Amino acid sequence: MVFGNLGMDSGTGVAFTRDPSSGARGVYGDYLQNAQGEDVVAGIRNTLALTELERLDKASYDQLMDIMTTLENHYRDLCDIEFTIERGKLWMLQTRVGKRTAAAAFTVACQLVDEGLIDMDEALQRVTGAQLANLMFPRFDRDAEKELLTTGMNASPGAAVGAVVFDSPTAVRRAKAGEKVLLVRRETNPDDLDGMIAAEGVLTSRGGRTSHAAVVARGMGKTAVCGAEELEVDVKARKLTDSRGREVSEGDVLSIDGTNGEVYLGEVPVVASPVMAYFEGSTGLAENDDLVAAVDRIMRHADAARRLRVRVNADTGEDCTTARTFGAEGVGLCRTEHMFLGERRELVETLVLAETQDEREKALAALLPLQIEDFTAIYRAMEGLPVTIRLLDPPLHEFLPDLTDLSVEVAVARERGELTEEKEELLASVRRLHEENPMLGLRGVRLGIAVPGLYAMQVRAITRAAAAVAAEGVAVLPEIMVPLVGTVQELQAVAAEIADVVAEPESLVDGRSVEHQIGTMIELPRAALVAAQIAEIAQFFSFGTNDLTQTTWGFSRDDVESSFFSDYLETGIFGVSPFESLDTEGVGELVEIASWRGREVRHDLKLGICGEHGGDPDSVHFFHRAGLDYVSCSPFRIPVARLEAGRAATASGDAG
Amino acid sequence: MVFGNLGMDSGTGVAFTRDPSSGARGVYGDYLQNAQGEDVVAGIRNTLALTELERLDKASYDQLMDIMTTLENHYRDLCDIEFTIERGKLWMLQTRVGKRTAAAAFTVACQLVDEGLIDMDEALQRVTGAQLANLMFPRFDRDAEKELLTTGMNASPGAAVGAVVFDSPTAVRRAKAGEKVLLVRRETNPDDLDGMIAAEGVLTSRGGRTSHAAVVARGMGKTAVCGAEELEVDVKARKLTDSRGREVSEGDVLSIDGTNGEVYLGEVPVVASPVMAYFEGSTGLAENDDLVAAVDRIMRHADAARRLRVRVNADTGEDCTTARTFGAEGVGLCRTEHMFLGERRELVETLVLAETQDEREKALAALLPLQIEDFTAIYRAMEGLPVTIRLLDPPLHEFLPDLTDLSVEVAVARERGELTEEKEELLASVRRLHEENPMLGLRGVRLGIAVPGLYAMQVRAITRAAAAVAAEGVAVLPEIMVPLVGTVQELQAVAAEIADVVAEPESLVDGRSVEHQIGTMIELPRAALVAAQIAEIAQFFSFGTNDLTQTTWGFSRDDVESSFFSDYLETGIFGVSPFESLDTEGVGELVEIASWRGREVRHDLKLGICGEHGGDPDSVHFFHRAGLDYVSCSPFRIPVARLEAGRAATASGDAG
Repeated sequence: MVFGNLGMDSGTGVAFTRDPSSGARGVYGDYLQNAQGEDVVAGIRNTLALTELERLDKASYDQLMDIMTTLENHYRDLCDIEFTIERGKLWMLQTRVGKRTAAAAFTVACQLVDEGLIDMDEALQRVTGAQLANLMFPRFDRDAEKELLTTGMNASPGAAVGAVVFDSPTAVRRAKAGEKVLLVRRETNPDDLDGMIAAEGVLTSRGGRTSHAAVVARGMGKTAVCGAEELEVDVKARKLTDSRGREVSEGDVLSIDGTNGEVYLGEVPVVASPVMAYFEGSTGLAENDDLVAAVDRIMRHADAARRLRVRVNADTGEDCTTARTFGAEGVGLCRTEHMFLGERRELVETLVLAETQDEREKALAALLPLQIEDFTAIYRAMEGLPVTIRLLDPPLHEFLPDLTDLSVEVAVARERGELTEEKEELLASVRRLHEENPMLGLRGVRLGIAVPGLYAMQVRAITRAAAAVAAEGVAVLPEIMVPLVGTVQELQAVAAEIADVVAEPESLVDGRSVEHQIGTMIELPRAALVAAQIAEIAQFFSFGTNDLTQTTWGFSRDDVESSFFSDYLETGIFGVSPFESLDTEGVGELVEIASWRGREVRHDLKLGICGEHGGDPDSVHFFHRAGLDYVSCSPFRIPVARLEAGRAATASGDAG
Repeated sequence: MVFGNLGMDSGTGVAFTRDPSSGARGVYGDYLQNAQGEDVVAGIRNTLALTELERLDKASYDQLMDIMTTLENHYRDLCDIEFTIERGKLWMLQTRVGKRTAAAAFTVACQLVDEGLIDMDEALQRVTGAQLANLMFPRFDRDAEKELLTTGMNASPGAAVGAVVFDSPTAVRRAKAGEKVLLVRRETNPDDLDGMIAAEGVLTSRGGRTSHAAVVARGMGKTAVCGAEELEVDVKARKLTDSRGREVSEGDVLSIDGTNGEVYLGEVPVVASPVMAYFEGSTGLAENDDLVAAVDRIMRHADAARRLRVRVNADTGEDCTTARTFGAEGVGLCRTEHMFLGERRELVETLVLAETQDEREKALAALLPLQIEDFTAIYRAMEGLPVTIRLLDPPLHEFLPDLTDLSVEVAVARERGELTEEKEELLASVRRLHEENPMLGLRGVRLGIAVPGLYAMQVRAITRAAAAVAAEGVAVLPEIMVPLVGTVQELQAVAAEIADVVAEPESLVDGRSVEHQIGTMIELPRAALVAAQIAEIAQFFSFGTNDLTQTTWGFSRDDVESSFFSDYLETGIFGVSPFESLDTEGVGELVEIASWRGREVRHDLKLGICGEHGGDPDSVHFFHRAGLDYVSCSPFRIPVARLEAGRAATASGDAG
């Protein structure tokens, strides 16, 4: 036992070998004279900055500096230290590799490389995709005045500011009126879903990272702080109270930090992330900012090391351009259904409701030039890179009014004597097309087979746009992807239709058909099992791991994430939501089965994944091990996927 | 070339070595003097019964009889023959094993055994489950006067009589008024579903055995004749016309035979099936009826040969009693949700809408004695045989009003100023519990975990009823089955709850817990993949092949059977509906994977199947090969399953 409380020549302190917040080199820590270890933490007196020790006890200070160097050389990492000085004699109490912020993780890793302590492969292992993702969020201004209200669990990252509301309808109403709101609840349940969508962020006083609010917010990419237990939330009185009695009423502004769980009173200014600016293509940042320089250096190494390519899920030329600056090496999923919304919805409604082939063809003919425009913009943006376009996937009735809403409208109109025949017919059609379980109904390739001419129109747009852009001298590499295939016969039928369209004069360049590939999504367990048959036709497989998770487990994300998932996470039935991180035992085995069986038949079968798992760190490692060629994810997840793909390659020793 | 048209000492004929209709021994066929082969078929003159030939040309007749014996000894089966007599000399044109009715198949097979031509194993291979199923339907009285209107495709077996209606709403309206109707359409589409349910049978003028009408009718077990192309169906004029100009108007009665495709004018009397009466336990039939005797003999052989046990899917004591007469060797699936309907629905509604644990417990306490009664009746009926009881499976909102209907009701009431607060609250609850894809939502074991006390109440009823019945000296073997398990953690949680309940004093017999097993449905692809883990807890697996088909293929039977299935069958994407006959490549592989992996961990793991595939002939053969212990099906399919299980065992050479 040593004592730091034997007089003013004694004391105790904590030290970091580098700044655990920014990663900067230097001396960081606190020192308290005439005190024992716990006194530093207890805050009984104000501590001194560690640099003061040099003045108070130079010998001990110099010795401490020497020890810190020794420790760093031994651990080859930032260390934190607890020490005591007993009457001028320095004693080390403990040391360990120190916790650090995401920013420090990157800068320290690069410093250690420069100091010759680790190599770049090791530096890459010292950072994570989760840390990189945190660095890409806007954050509260570090230098702003802030009044901390409380700290809860960092349930879903980001920085959100808004007027407090206590129920979902109010959130929806005020958000519609243009106001930014924060939904505050003791805990959330499925009734709060609309409010969560409307709000900038969610704050709860109960539940942790696996609570309903946390799970749903992460699923939406919405900032959330959960389990701020000091807060008393009184929904009826429309106010919350903290343990010190401070009150916040409906309409008062709070700021919540989903990255560290802090909740501030009032509006805290938000600053953009320099790391995000770097990924968005701002130049010169790496020269002026240590963090950006470190991120840049590690990303370059990850890119050189990784075997997995990284593509983007994007549906417009604009998104593709953004994605390229983020490092996308192709489009892994272009969802054509998004192109059927907005003004074109009416054309689609006509198509869906068409009773004759003639009506159907007119609607298709009107859609064709619009689809050609869509693909033209994407090809130009992705010049020289492959573009995977998925033929129409969702159930057709998604383009029609909701059955319940329309039924109510018709019933009310009938009651008022204002019912038109047109409305009544529309209801009859909507009822006819209604499905009990649309996720398990007439969608994907089934739609392509059931609606004559639909896929042909889309393929026509894909190949004609490609021919036109190729004629401009732009290299185009379209990959036509057929969704929801369960049996090879479905793919055969569509492939035959594609072959006919590709041979049409308007689709040719210099008399030859445009270079293209035909492939399929693997998103049904059966498709994975019969992959050998499917690979006879398909030139590529793209795993739709979201749908594959839904069918393998038999639950739909929309329905279950907001119902029993938090129970399952809290009781430990799930370690992590299988929609966040791939379920390697179940869904993963199907991915492996399909990969093996497919490649046995077609050795150069291209394998990719285009579910949101493509941007999840753990899942990326799995896809690397499974031998996939690429992952595809939303634009903002691309840097994370690149980093983790590099980490997976260096960790497994098969860096590119 | 020989000529039968060289005078009255020449002629041509067809002959059967036995009656192809009844199977009776004797001389059956037609003879036509001074004619060539096609004249017999063309019907240019009336043919003579073959027996007349003995009188006309005894030498040829005797020779023909000798040849028929030779042929039967060679082929060891009923043969059909074409022959010609040219100026008194008999020439054989061709022979082959003759087509026959289902009844003849059974009687002939037994005759051949008696004649020493084949053994009983071979006799078993000479009949099929499909033939047996046909014999179990009531049929039109053979001796009744019948006026044939036309013949279409035998799309779904049975005999149906009813007043003709031409649209679904009329079918529903008249059926509700107590009238028996036949729905007549050119072809059906999903709009006709309600009408098909309401009608006795369905008749269409278009499409074949794979048309919408045929597929849906077979799915419902409803009699159907499809593609009666001679009929002109005029829905607007509400009449149909045949090629001879005969008209049938709405309300006129027709009789349709789904087993042979015949359509008769007016009401043809229907006679009960003696084979059905035999299976229902009528005694003395086998002594008086050749057909029943043959069926009895072949069934006994099948039962002795088969390795697969046959259980029943039944939910009441009454059904269990019926099923035992059909040969059920246990209950493979008792669906407790059926017990929650009728008068008890209100209790379940209270349970679903309960906001406090107290309300919930009251509802559960009210259900407990009712569930105990249910199980008591079943145990008594199944004395000495295992009874597999599935804990509650369907989504809870199935016990609540339909969202669309209720929304309309509330909107209309509001419009009229008659809206009650109660109704409005009910709508809010229904909306909260509504799921986009209930098949993929909060159901099965998820429900058991999400609704505290629900499964405990059911297990309490299972074990208390078992304890009480066991105390009466009746042997009870309850098997508690947990539905929709995707991960072993779910089963662990429920198994722990079961263990607690089983140990309650009221569940004990002589201080010991009732003998029981705990097992699970395998109905999710993931459950099949992680079967080794699940088998650590489960003592039995029961494959729910209907749900497993739905998730493996990603389509729900209700939604797709009436939408794109007929397209798929007609274009050959499907050979047969995977809901009718097990998809052995996809779903079947999962059954095999689960069986292997499960038995590797637990060698005596009991394996069964309780989907409707358990009564499908082809599927039964697959389940035999996969090494399952039993199949379970609806009561009326039990004889088919027994027969096919015997056929599978003798065909594969591993008869029991």
